[in-house]
Amino acid sequence: MAKEEEFKDLGFGTGAAAGGSRLLNQDGSFNIERRGLKDGWTVNIYHSLITMSWTKFSLLVLAFYVLANLLFAMLYLIAGTDQLEGTTGISYLGKFSDAFFFSAQTITTVGYGKMNPQGVFANTIAAAESMFGLLGFAFATGLLYGRFSRPVAKIIYSHHSIIAPYRDHTGYMFRLANGRRNALIEIEAQVVFSCNTVVNDKVVRTFNTLKLERSKINFLPSSWTIVHPIDEESPFYNITHEDLIKAEAEVTILMKAFDDSFSQTVYSRSSYKATEMVVGAKFSTIHGKNKNVTFIDLHRLDEYELVDL
Amino acid sequence: MAKEEEFKDLGFGTGAAAGGSRLLNQDGSFNIERRGLKDGWTVNIYHSLITMSWTKFSLLVLAFYVLANLLFAMLYLIAGTDQLEGTTGISYLGKFSDAFFFSAQTITTVGYGKMNPQGVFANTIAAAESMFGLLGFAFATGLLYGRFSRPVAKIIYSHHSIIAPYRDHTGYMFRLANGRRNALIEIEAQVVFSCNTVVNDKVVRTFNTLKLERSKINFLPSSWTIVHPIDEESPFYNITHEDLIKAEAEVTILMKAFDDSFSQTVYSRSSYKATEMVVGAKFSTIHGKNKNVTFIDLHRLDEYELVDL
Amino acid sequence: MAKEEEFKDLGFGTGAAAGGSRLLNQDGSFNIERRGLKDGWTVNIYHSLITMSWTKFSLLVLAFYVLANLLFAMLYLIAGTDQLEGTTGISYLGKFSDAFFFSAQTITTVGYGKMNPQGVFANTIAAAESMFGLLGFAFATGLLYGRFSRPVAKIIYSHHSIIAPYRDHTGYMFRLANGRRNALIEIEAQVVFSCNTVVNDKVVRTFNTLKLERSKINFLPSSWTIVHPIDEESPFYNITHEDLIKAEAEVTILMKAFDDSFSQTVYSRSSYKATEMVVGAKFSTIHGKNKNVTFIDLHRLDEYELVDL
Amino acid sequence: MAKEEEFKDLGFGTGAAAGGSRLLNQDGSFNIERRGLKDGWTVNIYHSLITMSWTKFSLLVLAFYVLANLLFAMLYLIAGTDQLEGTTGISYLGKFSDAFFFSAQTITTVGYGKMNPQGVFANTIAAAESMFGLLGFAFATGLLYGRFSRPVAKIIYSHHSIIAPYRDHTGYMFRLANGRRNALIEIEAQVVFSCNTVVNDKVVRTFNTLKLERSKINFLPSSWTIVHPIDEESPFYNITHEDLIKAEAEVTILMKAFDDSFSQTVYSRSSYKATEMVVGAKFSTIHGKNKNVTFIDLHRLDEYELVDL
Repeated sequence: MAKEEEFKDLGFGTGAAAGGSRLLNQDGSFNIERRGLKDGWTVNIYHSLITMSWTKFSLLVLAFYVLANLLFAMLYLIAGTDQLEGTTGISYLGKFSDAFFFSAQTITTVGYGKMNPQGVFANTIAAAESMFGLLGFAFATGLLYGRFSRPVAKIIYSHHSIIAPYRDHTGYMFRLANGRRNALIEIEAQVVFSCNTVVNDKVVRTFNTLKLERSKINFLPSSWTIVHPIDEESPFYNITHEDLIKAEAEVTILMKAFDDSFSQTVYSRSSYKATEMVVGAKFSTIHGKNKNVTFIDLHRLDEYELVDL
Repeated sequence: MAKEEEFKDLGFGTGAAAGGSRLLNQDGSFNIERRGLKDGWTVNIYHSLITMSWTKFSLLVLAFYVLANLLFAMLYLIAGTDQLEGTTGISYLGKFSDAFFFSAQTITTVGYGKMNPQGVFANTIAAAESMFGLLGFAFATGLLYGRFSRPVAKIIYSHHSIIAPYRDHTGYMFRLANGRRNALIEIEAQVVFSCNTVVNDKVVRTFNTLKLERSKINFLPSSWTIVHPIDEESPFYNITHEDLIKAEAEVTILMKAFDDSFSQTVYSRSSYKATEMVVGAKFSTIHGKNKNVTFIDLHRLDEYELVDL
Repeated sequence: MAKEEEFKDLGFGTGAAAGGSRLLNQDGSFNIERRGLKDGWTVNIYHSLITMSWTKFSLLVLAFYVLANLLFAMLYLIAGTDQLEGTTGISYLGKFSDAFFFSAQTITTVGYGKMNPQGVFANTIAAAESMFGLLGFAFATGLLYGRFSRPVAKIIYSHHSIIAPYRDHTGYMFRLANGRRNALIEIEAQVVFSCNTVVNDKVVRTFNTLKLERSKINFLPSSWTIVHPIDEESPFYNITHEDLIKAEAEVTILMKAFDDSFSQTVYSRSSYKATEMVVGAKFSTIHGKNKNVTFIDLHRLDEYELVDL
Repeated sequence: MAKEEEFKDLGFGTGAAAGGSRLLNQDGSFNIERRGLKDGWTVNIYHSLITMSWTKFSLLVLAFYVLANLLFAMLYLIAGTDQLEGTTGISYLGKFSDAFFFSAQTITTVGYGKMNPQGVFANTIAAAESMFGLLGFAFATGLLYGRFSRPVAKIIYSHHSIIAPYRDHTGYMFRLANGRRNALIEIEAQVVFSCNTVVNDKVVRTFNTLKLERSKINFLPSSWTIVHPIDEESPFYNITHEDLIKAEAEVTILMKAFDDSFSQTVYSRSSYKATEMVVGAKFSTIHGKNKNVTFIDLHRLDEYELVDL
């Protein structure tokens, strides 16, 4: 039995008994660095552009637009503004301004035509630039669609997990809710306990899937308190809070659900260290009623009261 | 046993014993308000734009187009129409009209060029506007694609559920059909009964998954009558219609299927309150035959005849 | 036992004992008409545009382009060509030609500007047309993407199913292969037998899921012969070909697989009537070898040799 | 028992006992040629354009742009440059240059208008070309989006599989890791052993699903060593390396995971021939620690040390 546990490792490896650092951060990212990745740079750039904030994205688009126009303006200046019919600039700044705005009119394909290219060089640059503009715009279209249509579950977790009275004994619990307006369907939880254990005088990391009172629900319109009943087989059985902290215990959570708005399966990850656990507490109710409408207040998701076990 | 029931709560919470209101509306939406949502506004706007009616969407696009042109027209008027070559307006209205149509020619990148910007200010606005137009158009492309390619199951349910004769005793039944032309494949039903129960002098909501005669079918070309046989273990066993209404009984339904046209999994939700139940009835046939072609008439999905049990 | 069978109906309904017509056509479409569908027209139009042939689609796009230009040309003619600067047409045909090409230059946003709108009416039409052109183009972008990115499994089935020697007795078999270059992964088969049976002096349709020697394979690089061993529990046991034909027996097939190129689950449906069954045959091998490369020839998928059972 | 094995064939067919060639290449492609495919050419072209390298794709786009402009330039020359107002070319080359750049201005819809079509023929070509340009651009938009948004698992496998000490006896092992930055969730492995066996004096290919110590993990942030314990039921039990090579033994691997960045299920395939197996070895550790950060070095995925069994 003990031997089997040894190998249940979630993919972190039994050698992952790292000094003090956690396996999974509360935001669901991993605490391990991988060297020698074979990512294509295109995938990485695309992925960054899809996930960055809207402010950053807007500034980047603007910067790219200005830079591209600056670059093409240089090329038109090299060609000479005499190859641009209809320009009026005489000073260097005036010529540059003409070249810059001609570039903007070309890259957006607005092409008023008051200024227009004459000569093979300027014409070739303009033909290349308008094509480049169209492709850049095609790329932007894909990016915008990708940014909006990407389903991201935003499950909010209580900041603390607790050990609370449960039926005749106690249970390990945490609470979560859907932070988005989207309806989540068929929500499943997988909860794994891990800690450092001494096996043959060597510290290894052991992993235990926690049995849950209920691991799947149909809908998540309200909050859900996930309960692991602490019985004889539980790794929480007859162990003190200090021992859990010493063993660097960590509970990692994997939630799976179907997002009804995006028609796709979504996942969410989180974790609780032993230090984020309160022994002897119960979650306060977050349900309320206002003029016959039941509501829940997500700001109070982490609220608990201390109780005797 | 009773204890276990207590916790089968579908995610509504056992505290959801609300006075008279239903958990799930017949259109599948939830009867609970969530406060403190962490939705990004971008996701919400996108989602609204994807799900609103076509009439509303068209009017919004039109309004946005006119408003954007009005705004940019203002900016060109601030720059002064002397910065727009080729304008002919002399009166204020004429100048405004010129600015407005120049804006339209710029934002759509049609750029005839009869009117064209002169001077740094007007040129800068025009460069910004054409860029803005392109991005707006990119966004519209994504929206149109998103509106069309979004799979939405339209399962139609009979308005009433019935208790009908079934084999040697009775069964709880409702009828459904695919309201769209799309082929649905591997259709699954999950049906849950809930009612108010007094546990330790406290009213709590209890939940029961109903056993179905058949919970999965391969295809849904016709109608499907879902049957819960009422045996000793059924919550409908030996209970009167009045008691069900008093206990605010509700049957919630979760249907899952694969939409063959969109190659995606789709869900549909509905519910029946005790008051939407007819005791002693059977569904009328909705199959017909016309020149060797079998047909069903979806308008008659809810038709039933009263019978003795 | 018999009672349970009565209700295994795949969703066609036990009343589907139609005279001679099949439940499922060999191309996987259903033989039942549904009246009173609640499809939105938008979804239907989109779906038609996605699934029609490329020839038809191209002609439709062309027709739409010409018609839209004709319509807007009319509007410009109503406005009067004096509101279009730069036109040269004097005859009615000349004026129409000018209006038509000006419309084309506007709807595509090419906007040369030689011809350009003067006056509020022509300008308004042009502003509307360029906007309309952009949206139409956005729609076309979505359509083209939708047409290409839609995963469609093209599983080819042998035209006949056979009853062949299998181990010590016989088996019901048919053969299939992937007709596309795409790799299919985790291919699953569900095969259901149905026929007319007399129950209480009434002809009802009964349904039987056929047990398969193997119902799932990992890859489908070659052909797959699906085998239902005919034992005592099989509906094919001790029944003649004539009886099967008389009972209008039909075998319906539902295949499920993961399409590796499109990263999506795909389904394929087909069926065999009793008349498409050969009793006493075995499939010929379709494997060959050419210079150390194994190949299969899909044209020979239906080839079989008659054998004694 | 033996009879059942005979038919577990993964879809390669028991006749696949090919002389020396492998069923599955290490990159996951199949070693079988299919003749008579029913692929539509459109799907193939789209698929090629989605999967080719960026360099090849860029060159193709450029080539297509130049060729399209050459073609339309020809058409304008046929119409005669007198139908193009504003052209200045007198020599043949000058006229061609005018026609070419006018085409570029039309196909990108930039339409400066200095040059513009006069006469029905040139106008018709220009109207067709701008429409063609828009559709081409719509297609490019779809392609770019398709290229970026396509989820591709890049699981890296050790080049060798090994037979290593495992608990009290030995195990067959190979090691893998996620080669991309994307988080993979719920990773599943299916491993099948196949070899040539003599059944009734005929060489057939037999297939065996290998039992794994663990076939599913929640996350793959680090590397994963997949272990098949060699017990009495294992096909590796009491067989020499030479016998495995003689029997052309091959281990095929199918990995399934959920790609968190693309919200889609992805698959990866690979295989090991008996000749790619090292008997008596164990994988070296690839974990390291740098300033409290655990890291793994993917370049060392295949490193192993020879050991006695």
